[in-house]
Amino acid sequence: MQVRKAVITAAGPNQNRLPLQQLVCRKGEDKTALQLIVEETIDAGIEEICVVIKPGDEDAYRNAAGSHLGSLQFVEQPEPKGYADAIYRAKDFVGDEPFMHLVGDHLYLSSSDVPCAKQLVSIASEHDCSVSAVQATRENKLPYFGIISGSHVPRHEGVYEIDRVVEKPTPTFAEQELVTPGLRAGHYLGFFGIHVLANDVMTVIGELLDQPSEKPPTLSDALWQLTKRQKYLAYEVQGTRYNLGVQYGLLIAQLAIGLSGRHRDLILTEMVDLLANRSEVAS
Amino acid sequence: MQVRKAVITAAGPNQNRLPLQQLVCRKGEDKTALQLIVEETIDAGIEEICVVIKPGDEDAYRNAAGSHLGSLQFVEQPEPKGYADAIYRAKDFVGDEPFMHLVGDHLYLSSSDVPCAKQLVSIASEHDCSVSAVQATRENKLPYFGIISGSHVPRHEGVYEIDRVVEKPTPTFAEQELVTPGLRAGHYLGFFGIHVLANDVMTVIGELLDQPSEKPPTLSDALWQLTKRQKYLAYEVQGTRYNLGVQYGLLIAQLAIGLSGRHRDLILTEMVDLLANRSEVAS
Repeated sequence: MQVRKAVITAAGPNQNRLPLQQLVCRKGEDKTALQLIVEETIDAGIEEICVVIKPGDEDAYRNAAGSHLGSLQFVEQPEPKGYADAIYRAKDFVGDEPFMHLVGDHLYLSSSDVPCAKQLVSIASEHDCSVSAVQATRENKLPYFGIISGSHVPRHEGVYEIDRVVEKPTPTFAEQELVTPGLRAGHYLGFFGIHVLANDVMTVIGELLDQPSEKPPTLSDALWQLTKRQKYLAYEVQGTRYNLGVQYGLLIAQLAIGLSGRHRDLILTEMVDLLANRSEVAS
Repeated sequence: MQVRKAVITAAGPNQNRLPLQQLVCRKGEDKTALQLIVEETIDAGIEEICVVIKPGDEDAYRNAAGSHLGSLQFVEQPEPKGYADAIYRAKDFVGDEPFMHLVGDHLYLSSSDVPCAKQLVSIASEHDCSVSAVQATRENKLPYFGIISGSHVPRHEGVYEIDRVVEKPTPTFAEQELVTPGLRAGHYLGFFGIHVLANDVMTVIGELLDQPSEKPPTLSDALWQLTKRQKYLAYEVQGTRYNLGVQYGLLIAQLAIGLSGRHRDLILTEMVDLLANRSEVAS
């Protein structure tokens, strides 16, 4: 499986401004969050990128794309109907190829020499199938993630054959149905925010969207259908993801990037200086 | 002197995106930098605000203004010709009233119970004249600031009668011409980024703009002319300013705000966690 295309979904009503925010990358260069996400894909070998945006956001995104604008296309998601609907807007862009999916409001920091998205692409190539990045997720975080259960693939560290995909399960349900052997007690495999998906997922989403339903289908719904049809793996990425959408998400992501990069000493100095000088809690 | 109006200049080519950036205020609420600057003026009693922007930026600024949009007007500065020209764009808005001027790419944190802009307004009211906020500035920072020299006004702590205003002086010039008695050796009074100005400054800027000159006049040029015509004070504000436009400026401002606010403990926890987990310097 060769992965040349990526879909970045950034149309959520409360996340659509996050990719436009200004950060400083590990090398010390000013970059928007969008540029950092795009570079994550390009470092993984992606050549063409489709960004799914909220209507009216294209100009702001074009301004935030920097030197990567030439690799980018934009499609709009008219209404906020979740990731499955958003990804389906990129159906024509994807054509009959596999593709990578990333969310627009997360940044990823690898703990190895290989960027997170690239780790995932190499597992997808090796096993020639869809792979979702996952991470061990504590029970109290279940309400925030799609959760999978699966079985460890022998002799492949961190690789799991997926049995089940459930969007935001309750702890009780997870304990009964979603335990993956080998993890610490009370931990489950939760989506990390990057997937490499066979083209068939577009067919599955199309079918789900055609079914009458009160709520739009989630990406987890579609991925569970995929599980039933073909080989589909999960991989525990070596790295950390930073959700820009939570309170202080930008601050924490920037600190993590800064402390991992070439200006680590400068950031540490500023931290100590601020701790010394801003000790009082103002009203 | 009653100050009801403020002019925020945000049209500089490399600073015009900064007021649009997302931060978390001391109280833990998501705010744009623009909202924080506007709130600094409103807390000081300002009722009407004119933001001087780069052509094409109005929509983005309107989106970033939050609940204060009703108090805001926008005027464009067609070309980046410095602060004096930018302020002059707000001449009709200001009318015949005194006004406050703030730059759009700085945030201010008071070290007392009184916000920085409000400290300045109360000095202006008390002395019934123009007042510029200043801070003791080390010699090595002279290339970044307008510098004043003056003499301490007896019995008024931190208040100086201004003799001279020079934009970005050399250390040699400063040592010969700009020493203010009472400061530590090698320190000068540099502009802090907030001024309360009598309406006459508009007349002065108009005259300077009418004079043939290779370079557009600076705000310091105009303020020096003001010094010669009327009473004009400087006040050492109790607080710190954070320049968002320098490298890691947003990070440092956000850390300073966070460490001074209600989520101080949470920020400290995140800092320690990141220091523990992001100890390696990645390539």
